[in-house]
Amino acid sequence: MLPPLRTPPDSPASAPRDLVVLGSTGSIGVQTLEIAALFPERFRVRALTAGTNTALLAEQARATRPEVVAIADEARYADLAAALEGTGVRVLAGEAGVCEVASLDGVDVVVAAIVGAAGLRPTLAAVERGRTVALANKETLVVAGALVRDRTAACGATLLPVDSEHSAIFQCLVGEDPEAVERLILTASGGPFRTRPADTFDAIRPEEALAHPNWSMGAKITIDSATLMNKGLEVIEARWLFGLGPDRIEVLVHPQSIVHSMVAFRDGSTKAQLGVPDMKVPIQYALTYPDRWPAPHERLDWTTLRCLDFEAPDLSRFPCLGLAFEALRRGGTAPAALNAANEAAVALFLDGAVRFTDVPRLIEAAMDADAGAAGDDLDALTEADRAARAHVRARARAA
Amino acid sequence: MLPPLRTPPDSPASAPRDLVVLGSTGSIGVQTLEIAALFPERFRVRALTAGTNTALLAEQARATRPEVVAIADEARYADLAAALEGTGVRVLAGEAGVCEVASLDGVDVVVAAIVGAAGLRPTLAAVERGRTVALANKETLVVAGALVRDRTAACGATLLPVDSEHSAIFQCLVGEDPEAVERLILTASGGPFRTRPADTFDAIRPEEALAHPNWSMGAKITIDSATLMNKGLEVIEARWLFGLGPDRIEVLVHPQSIVHSMVAFRDGSTKAQLGVPDMKVPIQYALTYPDRWPAPHERLDWTTLRCLDFEAPDLSRFPCLGLAFEALRRGGTAPAALNAANEAAVALFLDGAVRFTDVPRLIEAAMDADAGAAGDDLDALTEADRAARAHVRARARAA
Repeated sequence: MLPPLRTPPDSPASAPRDLVVLGSTGSIGVQTLEIAALFPERFRVRALTAGTNTALLAEQARATRPEVVAIADEARYADLAAALEGTGVRVLAGEAGVCEVASLDGVDVVVAAIVGAAGLRPTLAAVERGRTVALANKETLVVAGALVRDRTAACGATLLPVDSEHSAIFQCLVGEDPEAVERLILTASGGPFRTRPADTFDAIRPEEALAHPNWSMGAKITIDSATLMNKGLEVIEARWLFGLGPDRIEVLVHPQSIVHSMVAFRDGSTKAQLGVPDMKVPIQYALTYPDRWPAPHERLDWTTLRCLDFEAPDLSRFPCLGLAFEALRRGGTAPAALNAANEAAVALFLDGAVRFTDVPRLIEAAMDADAGAAGDDLDALTEADRAARAHVRARARAA
Repeated sequence: MLPPLRTPPDSPASAPRDLVVLGSTGSIGVQTLEIAALFPERFRVRALTAGTNTALLAEQARATRPEVVAIADEARYADLAAALEGTGVRVLAGEAGVCEVASLDGVDVVVAAIVGAAGLRPTLAAVERGRTVALANKETLVVAGALVRDRTAACGATLLPVDSEHSAIFQCLVGEDPEAVERLILTASGGPFRTRPADTFDAIRPEEALAHPNWSMGAKITIDSATLMNKGLEVIEARWLFGLGPDRIEVLVHPQSIVHSMVAFRDGSTKAQLGVPDMKVPIQYALTYPDRWPAPHERLDWTTLRCLDFEAPDLSRFPCLGLAFEALRRGGTAPAALNAANEAAVALFLDGAVRFTDVPRLIEAAMDADAGAAGDDLDALTEADRAARAHVRARARAA
């Protein structure tokens, strides 16, 4: 009765989807395998990689029986090989081993869930093989957005967002003409200091910043949520994923983290994706797109929800968000410098070496010192990353 | 970089869309012509019809220069013909004339915006010609849902929703597999008596019920908003439009009327469509689907919006909503009886002949008296309608 809403799926529902999980021992990797375990007939885990967590990687490999695993830390190769003896699972090591796994043939989805800059080269390896990449590694697009966009197009690869905000935008875009998008609205919880007075920000201790109200995440990303840099990095990712400039991306603080993001269209209509804060929903969507498979994830309960609040972000208390927009406007290596300076500054804050309010100051200084090279050269990006980290450490020592 | 979100439109953007507007002098009809006037190169108004408002219909015809117009009230034919003398616009009259206009050849979209039961036959005429029908006439699906569904399928017609709630659901469904839908969540403003204590409902006067907080509408539909019957009728429409039973349709009170409705999917994800309360956005979407054309409709302003509230509807204070669900469960002619009894009871309330709290009592009694025939026979539906109206009037006189 309604018009056909979408064309039928290309592949029969019965064909299992072959997965490679890069970074399987991190939070996203573990949840990816939990989802794969929900559908044992429909997913086949072909390969796993980890950075250093040999014990968990071996346990995952024994449970899912992939063809091959890789551990990035070569010193742990012997341990891993011993733990998997007799299983028939091939064991690789080092960045080359991880990239070999990322390039495996006949794979439906490569989940790029390595945390930090270490994820960039393996993700690029999958892109260059023309794979469908479920992208959970922020750095790939934050550091090398222009480069990844160009290589993705050249190699016929497909990126599917995994971050809850980008997945929300993507879910709002299915069936829509990308030309009809007016603005993207990324929601932000506002972090633990949303209502804290500005004059007390100097006194923020790491343990306060590590207490996130809605999401359970790693230490670095939790600090990024407290400074709103996490949202700034997501703005940069959104710029490359969806091809819209910083003037068409907005951030809206939404403390309950129920509306995961929104898309405003040129006809005045807005679409939003909502759900309880649970990364399993966007991860599963990336694994099953364009289908949605029935799953027992927690549903929204509107009888208890009652109220959704929204407010503009306060850039004077959270300057990191403004710096991310500024990095996008400067372009070239500026986002790479922003990201590296942030990593270095957050590490110093977690070590008690600098104050919470020093983090944006150190990043801004490193961005101003950045050479401003073009953003499509991996060597220039690597150098901008190195220089920004060095700049932050030197300035922190001098203070 | 992202996968293709939708297939390109079938027709070049330059081909104008030919419109027929049934009920052009009502609120939806007038707004449809305002939208057509926003895009004079892209829409061509081929025909208009009205019930009795000869003066406005003639004015619209002089402005849009359609091929043909029809006035349902045959007594007004001469007036209309005189008003359009020399324009070259053909003039028809009566239900047959309106149905002839509804059947016009080579039309892209027929907007079915006739108010009330008079809209049923002309809408069916368009359906039976296999047209794309932008459906604003509630009665078509409320009274004759099963019949319209069957004829739509048999004649290859397409229905596009115009109501803001059904348009919202439809917008959330584009690009999605209909099988992946778990529940539809229709939002309701809650009307002017959302927070009014139950023990004062007997004293509600018509002029209080006519003051709707968010939407500007006709008198009958405004009373329906105050009793929540309007939402009940929309639940019945949704059942037929989207093919889901009453157990999979929910109503959620949302006083700000910003979230126009939502779809919950089987993977735990929920999508919503939002906007300021302005019928022009859903009307335009129905006219331009699957495209979205740039338009100056008011945008959501999140700096002033701040909070969206949600609560479960109170069926003890608003029994009309429960009666609509009950009519769907009974099936057959029960929704036709519900709708007719409601029209009769609301007219009596507006005349001061019965109390606000008598409306659901009169409807329930008429439903219980309904013969319960099958719902795919237009004569049986017409008889159920007649009997329910007679039952309500007789019972009100007896009280």
